Amino acid sequence: MADQKNDHLVQSDDPDHPANLIPRLCKQFYSLGWVTGTGGGASIRKDEHVYIAPSGVQKELMRSENIFVLSYPTPKYPPSARQYIRKPLDLKPSACTPLFLAAFERGAGCCIHTHSQWAVLVTLLVEKLHGKEACFEISDIEQIKGIPKGPAKGMLGFHDTLRIPIIENTPFEEDLTESLEKAMELYPDTCAVLVRRHGIYVWGDNVAKAKTQCESLDYLFQLAVEMHKLGLPWTLRG
Amino acid sequence: MADQKNDHLVQSDDPDHPANLIPRLCKQFYSLGWVTGTGGGASIRKDEHVYIAPSGVQKELMRSENIFVLSYPTPKYPPSARQYIRKPLDLKPSACTPLFLAAFERGAGCCIHTHSQWAVLVTLLVEKLHGKEACFEISDIEQIKGIPKGPAKGMLGFHDTLRIPIIENTPFEEDLTESLEKAMELYPDTCAVLVRRHGIYVWGDNVAKAKTQCESLDYLFQLAVEMHKLGLPWTLRG
Amino acid sequence: MADQKNDHLVQSDDPDHPANLIPRLCKQFYSLGWVTGTGGGASIRKDEHVYIAPSGVQKELMRSENIFVLSYPTPKYPPSARQYIRKPLDLKPSACTPLFLAAFERGAGCCIHTHSQWAVLVTLLVEKLHGKEACFEISDIEQIKGIPKGPAKGMLGFHDTLRIPIIENTPFEEDLTESLEKAMELYPDTCAVLVRRHGIYVWGDNVAKAKTQCESLDYLFQLAVEMHKLGLPWTLRG
Amino acid sequence: MADQKNDHLVQSDDPDHPANLIPRLCKQFYSLGWVTGTGGGASIRKDEHVYIAPSGVQKELMRSENIFVLSYPTPKYPPSARQYIRKPLDLKPSACTPLFLAAFERGAGCCIHTHSQWAVLVTLLVEKLHGKEACFEISDIEQIKGIPKGPAKGMLGFHDTLRIPIIENTPFEEDLTESLEKAMELYPDTCAVLVRRHGIYVWGDNVAKAKTQCESLDYLFQLAVEMHKLGLPWTLRG
Repeated sequence: MADQKNDHLVQSDDPDHPANLIPRLCKQFYSLGWVTGTGGGASIRKDEHVYIAPSGVQKELMRSENIFVLSYPTPKYPPSARQYIRKPLDLKPSACTPLFLAAFERGAGCCIHTHSQWAVLVTLLVEKLHGKEACFEISDIEQIKGIPKGPAKGMLGFHDTLRIPIIENTPFEEDLTESLEKAMELYPDTCAVLVRRHGIYVWGDNVAKAKTQCESLDYLFQLAVEMHKLGLPWTLRG
Repeated sequence: MADQKNDHLVQSDDPDHPANLIPRLCKQFYSLGWVTGTGGGASIRKDEHVYIAPSGVQKELMRSENIFVLSYPTPKYPPSARQYIRKPLDLKPSACTPLFLAAFERGAGCCIHTHSQWAVLVTLLVEKLHGKEACFEISDIEQIKGIPKGPAKGMLGFHDTLRIPIIENTPFEEDLTESLEKAMELYPDTCAVLVRRHGIYVWGDNVAKAKTQCESLDYLFQLAVEMHKLGLPWTLRG
Repeated sequence: MADQKNDHLVQSDDPDHPANLIPRLCKQFYSLGWVTGTGGGASIRKDEHVYIAPSGVQKELMRSENIFVLSYPTPKYPPSARQYIRKPLDLKPSACTPLFLAAFERGAGCCIHTHSQWAVLVTLLVEKLHGKEACFEISDIEQIKGIPKGPAKGMLGFHDTLRIPIIENTPFEEDLTESLEKAMELYPDTCAVLVRRHGIYVWGDNVAKAKTQCESLDYLFQLAVEMHKLGLPWTLRG
Repeated sequence: MADQKNDHLVQSDDPDHPANLIPRLCKQFYSLGWVTGTGGGASIRKDEHVYIAPSGVQKELMRSENIFVLSYPTPKYPPSARQYIRKPLDLKPSACTPLFLAAFERGAGCCIHTHSQWAVLVTLLVEKLHGKEACFEISDIEQIKGIPKGPAKGMLGFHDTLRIPIIENTPFEEDLTESLEKAMELYPDTCAVLVRRHGIYVWGDNVAKAKTQCESLDYLFQLAVEMHKLGLPWTLRG
């Protein structure tokens, strides 16, 4: 039966195989405070497979055998062609799965979901300052150059305004899918969507891009919270 | 005499044996700032034994031979049946012992006690804002979903209000037992009790649950302190 | 000549030998932010020797061969009997040496000096709130129980007021000796002296006590700064 | 072709060879929050070579084979004599290169560039408090003694005022070179230049000095931000 369970999909000596990389990333995200208390997650798409961290496990203790694998036939296959081809029997699949897939539909190779407190605080400050319809905006900070202008458009410039849309949270994570996809349509150049009172989804062409973009955004959210405490505006027009 | 000392109770090659797990957890709690300066502690119940971190040692340097073991006959035995069956001669048992046992009486498999500054600050802010009788309340934050509704009741929902009771500190830790048990009766669904100007006790069915619940609560306390600094209320009704 | 250099004094397979312990402590203090940029230091007295971290080295990279050793004849010898019996040729002795010795005169076995920002901020807040003559005072916080009442007097109680004297900084560290000794006379029960705009000296009977007392004090200083930001007084009388 | 690529320039068993040291430093800087999201960098000059961290890589994962090498003929050669003699084919050279070289022209042996949030916040606070022409000033803090008075002039004293010039950021990092060099002329004794809304460049005679000076400055920036939050002035005259 072992073969039917497709264990070989998560067994590799290559340290950069998705099944080895996801646990290593989750351990690092734990020490960054992004996946405290089993919150958050990460997923990698490679060829015709999507690898996903399970729900509910201690992220810093995750192992490659805990990884779920979804078949992800390359373009032109209907979404229905996607199905779990490896499910660890003792674990639940991540409720983030449809959200990760929404990023992969747009061409992403990796998607990260964090519960970073800086992200949560920024969503609350934006609502307080500008209302529920507003997105997060910041400009004229060097680290903005770590975020792409849009798919295949190069990186933002120092004087550009970075805009990250914010969607409202829902009681069930999978119910975020519709509003996440809507935000992706309204902001076709964004590489991230904030979720109010919850956290953020960040994606990129590959693991290195998704991770460094997530780091750059988290840096900007932390800076923005500290700027607000010090009475400093987030953009030059105040 | 070695056998009388019951050293075999804390000797195991299994990294997840309680006598190996408690030192590993304490080291991790030290790096989280939860057990600074010998403060705090942890205890695990397994079958008919309770394993307890000793008092007064540097938590990040604890070793399995430092662990106290208490006999804990399964249900229907009177509390008097509990007694130390392994006492490291050079160490003092933890003053938290009766508090850990109160959690085990309610079915917990692991109990964690931290001196987290976020927990202490929250107890002070609640008193300042709502008086000594008030409990800590927060709602509409995703991380709340990391806390159970109550024993065997599933997890809290995003819109639910998390309530953690707060008891007053006493000069001697063991004297907290009565008010802790009273808080457990008043809040039969809680998995934690805050101690004003002191810290928190968090418990769960097993080590993974106690630890991730403790992490989720600490996340929420830190967020609440930062929200207060930014003038953001902890619940939607303010 | 090797023997004249007394290299054997810092060569030991025992991980807890002072020459091995000081580098390990300094590495840990570096990660706590206590000895940033070569600031701070540590010293251990053992039998008739005093071991001291050198001046100016990167504290996280210190090695046992960098340690200075001072002869420290047990009681009734005049201070003049103290002299360096091992001096690494390429390093300068610590300017903290006379301050460490002042602690050893009072019976300490270990003395730690940090540049912790929490300590520095507390000295500035006390001056602003109560003037230059005031000491730091805090009460009714559990962590206070991690600080001794005085030599051989047991630990402070929860309701006791912890008082740490503050001395003014001087351009040359060794010139602090007189005021440090004066503070020790005025506060014969203290295990620490704060230095305004500089940091703190903490000592204890042995390494474990000095370190955990230093941790407890740093915890209390950080808590005090955060309490001040939140408008919470440090003692019940405000 | 391997020899033409000059791979031997970055291959050494010596852990302190620049090609081994830069990756180790970058990993440490990552954990300090200085080079988040591929930001920042470091360069070492040794004999007739300059070693430079590449652009755009995850700094905590850098390897010695990623290092660029520039020929740097000792004095009296024109700047045109400098050229890359080792370029990893899959990487881009750092845009910081001309800025690092400006430091080496002044005799530095190592130059570090960070995106530290404390540095960024300090540049914003100085502008808000004193205008765009002002430099950062702080005095009467012990850690100031970790910064040199100027080349071959010894270290600053406790009562001295540390001054760090601030230049305006530009959309392209290499365009900072002119204003950086101008700041170096106006402040011939400085070992660092802050870049508004961006970060800092810090240099020193060697790696140990550049790194510990960078740590001391970052400590002072963090302290200054916290002092400002608490209403405490940065110099005694307010």
